[in-house]
Amino acid sequence: MKVKIICVGEELLSGDIVNTNSQYISQKLMDIGIKPLNHTTVGDCMDDIVSVTKQGFKNFDVLIFTGGLGPTTDDLTKEAVCKALNLELEKRDEIVLKMEKRFEKIGIKMSANNLKQAYMPKGCKEIPNKNGTAPGILINYKNKIVALLPGPPREMNPMLENYLIPELRDKSNFIIKSQTLKTMGIGESTLESKIRHIILKYKELIIATYAKEGQVDIKITCICQNDKQGEILIHNAVKEIKNIAGKYIYSYNGESLEEVVYRLLLERQLKVGFCESCTGGLISSRLIKIPGVSSVFDRGYITYSNKSKIEELNVSQNTLKKFGAVSKETALEMVKGLIEESNVDIGISVTGIAGPDGGTDEKPVGLVYIGLAAKEFKNVFKYVFSGSREVIQNRAANMAFMNLIKYLD
Amino acid sequence: MKVKIICVGEELLSGDIVNTNSQYISQKLMDIGIKPLNHTTVGDCMDDIVSVTKQGFKNFDVLIFTGGLGPTTDDLTKEAVCKALNLELEKRDEIVLKMEKRFEKIGIKMSANNLKQAYMPKGCKEIPNKNGTAPGILINYKNKIVALLPGPPREMNPMLENYLIPELRDKSNFIIKSQTLKTMGIGESTLESKIRHIILKYKELIIATYAKEGQVDIKITCICQNDKQGEILIHNAVKEIKNIAGKYIYSYNGESLEEVVYRLLLERQLKVGFCESCTGGLISSRLIKIPGVSSVFDRGYITYSNKSKIEELNVSQNTLKKFGAVSKETALEMVKGLIEESNVDIGISVTGIAGPDGGTDEKPVGLVYIGLAAKEFKNVFKYVFSGSREVIQNRAANMAFMNLIKYLD
Repeated sequence: MKVKIICVGEELLSGDIVNTNSQYISQKLMDIGIKPLNHTTVGDCMDDIVSVTKQGFKNFDVLIFTGGLGPTTDDLTKEAVCKALNLELEKRDEIVLKMEKRFEKIGIKMSANNLKQAYMPKGCKEIPNKNGTAPGILINYKNKIVALLPGPPREMNPMLENYLIPELRDKSNFIIKSQTLKTMGIGESTLESKIRHIILKYKELIIATYAKEGQVDIKITCICQNDKQGEILIHNAVKEIKNIAGKYIYSYNGESLEEVVYRLLLERQLKVGFCESCTGGLISSRLIKIPGVSSVFDRGYITYSNKSKIEELNVSQNTLKKFGAVSKETALEMVKGLIEESNVDIGISVTGIAGPDGGTDEKPVGLVYIGLAAKEFKNVFKYVFSGSREVIQNRAANMAFMNLIKYLD
Repeated sequence: MKVKIICVGEELLSGDIVNTNSQYISQKLMDIGIKPLNHTTVGDCMDDIVSVTKQGFKNFDVLIFTGGLGPTTDDLTKEAVCKALNLELEKRDEIVLKMEKRFEKIGIKMSANNLKQAYMPKGCKEIPNKNGTAPGILINYKNKIVALLPGPPREMNPMLENYLIPELRDKSNFIIKSQTLKTMGIGESTLESKIRHIILKYKELIIATYAKEGQVDIKITCICQNDKQGEILIHNAVKEIKNIAGKYIYSYNGESLEEVVYRLLLERQLKVGFCESCTGGLISSRLIKIPGVSSVFDRGYITYSNKSKIEELNVSQNTLKKFGAVSKETALEMVKGLIEESNVDIGISVTGIAGPDGGTDEKPVGLVYIGLAAKEFKNVFKYVFSGSREVIQNRAANMAFMNLIKYLD
C-alpha cells in the first residue's frame, strides 16, 4: 500500500514550527506494517494543494492530509481536495448541531465562520474530533483512500489512532514488530561499536541507535508476515545486547525514565520527595505527568536562593559559606533536610550551575551534584554536563531519575 | 525565487527522527526574504529521488537536498540527481586528498567506500564540509540552482549558513519583516473573526493566527523591498489589532509567557514564589529556564499530598475536610501560607484535578483554582480546562503566568 502524507500550513514552510505530525503519523503507520513513501508540506495556497492532491492521487493508494481544516479563510485543504478530485461539498446538519452543543458547553457563542467546518465532501465519512471543532474526513474514492485530519496534534493524534489506523490495518499484509531498549551513561558511537557484530549478524532485523540528551535508544525492528517469527528474532538479539550493554539499559520496553521510577516505587510501596535548585521543579513536574503519581510522590521543594535552602531544608549557613551552594556538602545537607522535614522514604537533591553565566574554572557551568538519601543510605554524585541551560537542566533531571532507578532496582 | 526543500532518508519516513532540517533551512531562508514553497521527504530509493528531482526542477528555481551523501550503498542522492538532470560524475583528486588527510588526523584507516564521496557532478562547485567527509555540491544548471547537503545537522547547518545562504541572498530582492503578537484567553476563530477586516484591509501583509494549548499567536509578515516600508505597514496593522484585541495580547514581540513575567518582575524589582499541587513544579521549572531568574524567583513548594499542604503551607485540616483540596478556600490558604512562609512579594498557588481519573460531577477533571496574593491583593480564579492530563497541567501553568502578567502590567 503506497502512502503519502501531506501537511498543509504556512507555519511549517516558514519554519515557525517543526513538523511533528509527519513523524507521528509515520510511527503509527510503521506499527501496522506500512512505511509511508513520501512526506510533503505545502502552504495554505489553493493551487499548491490542488496540484499536490492530483499528483498524489495518481501515484499513491492512500493520501493522509493534516492541517487547513480550521474555520478561517486561509484554511483551504477541504476545498482544494474537493476541487482536485471533482467532489462537491454539502452542509451536514448533524455536524452543525454537534458544534453548537460544543460551544454551548464551554459557554462561548459560536462564531459564524465555524459553519464552514460543517461542510463535507459528498459521500465521505466523518472522523469524529473529540478535542476540537474541525471534523476529520474519510474519502473512499476510485479504490483509493483520502483522509483529512486537523493540524493540532492534540486533535489529530486520537483521530488517527482510533479511526484511521484501524481502517488501514485491515488492508495491510505485513506486521512490523519492534522493541526499544533505553540506555543512559554510554555514548552513541561507543554503544554502536560494542553491538556492531550483533547488528551485522541479525540481517532480518533493523537495529538502529538514536541519541538524545545523554540517552541512547536502541530500536530493533522486524518486518514480518507472522508475529511469532519476528518475536523470536527480536528476543534473541535483545539477549545478546543485554549481555554486552545490560548495565546501561534502564528499560527493555521503551518506558521513559520517570515511568520506570514510578513503577519501581509503586512495587516497593515507597514515597519519594525532591529538593531542586538548578532544575527548579523539572524533576517533580516530569514525575507528576504520570497519572496516579500520588501513591509514590508526596512533595517537593524548589530551593533556588540560599535563604530558602537554609529555611526549608536546614542547610547550615556555614556549609554554604565554606563550600558554596553548588557543592557535595550542600547537596548532602539538602537531601538530609528533605528527609527530616517531609518524612518521605527516598529523597533526591539537585544543586548545580545551569549557566550560561556563573561558572568559574573551579566550578564550571554544567557542574551538578545529585544527593540521594533513604533510610540507611546517603550518597552524592558529581557530574559535569555540557550543553545549553535547558540541556543541562534536562540532563541533570535524567541523571536524578537514573540514580533512583539504580538504587531501587 | 521558488524554492523546494527535499530531504532524503528512511529514518525520516519511518518517523524514527523528526525532520528538523526542513525547519532549519526554512528559517534561514526566511531571514533573507525567501519563503520555501514545498518540503518533500523521500526514502533512499533511486526511482523516488529521480522522480522528485525531475518534477522539482521543472517547477522550482532552487532545489535544496539534504541527506543521502554518505559513503554507503544506500546513499543515492548524488547519483539520482545526476541521473535526473543528465549530468556526469567525475572523480576529484583534491577531494580524495582532503579525505585522506582527515582520516589520518583522527587515526582511522579510510575505508574504500569513502572514495564514492570524491565523485562530483561535472562542472559543479564543492561546498566544503568541516564536520564530516561528505562534500556538499552546488550545481548551477539552466539558470537554476540545485544544492546537495549532507543530512546530519552538525554538518549541514554550517554549510548552509556559510555558503548556500550567502549565495542565495545575492539573488533575493526581498526582505521578510515579521512580528508576532501573543494572546491568551480568546479562541482562534473568535479572534480571527474580530480582526478579519484588518486581515482583508492590509493586502500587502500576511496576517495569520496559530493556536496552541489555549494560546493564539497572530503573526504578521511582510515581504517587502525595503525595511522602512514593511515596518510602517506592520506598525499600522498592529495598532488596529491592539484597539480590538489588546486585552488578550500579552506580548507584542513574540516573548513567551514566562519571559514577560520575568521582565515585569525585574522591572518592578519583585520576587515571586509558587506553591503547586496539580502542576507539580511545572510553573517553577518553566520560569527557571530563563537565565538570571534568581533576581526574581526565590522558592517554590510542590504540595501534592494533603499532609504537605498542611505542613508546608499551614492549610487548615478543617478547610481541606470541609471544602476539599481542590477548592477556592484551599487555593487561598495555600497562597497565604506561601507568602507567610517565604516572604516573597507575590505568590501563586495552583490546585486542581489534572485527571484522567478523580473527577466528579461537582468537581470535574480539568477544574483548577489559581490563587494570587501580594501585599494588599488576594484573589482566587476558577477554570475548567479540557484535554489530557498534560494539556490541563500546561494550560493551568499558562493561566498562572497570565494572571501574574495581568497583575503586574
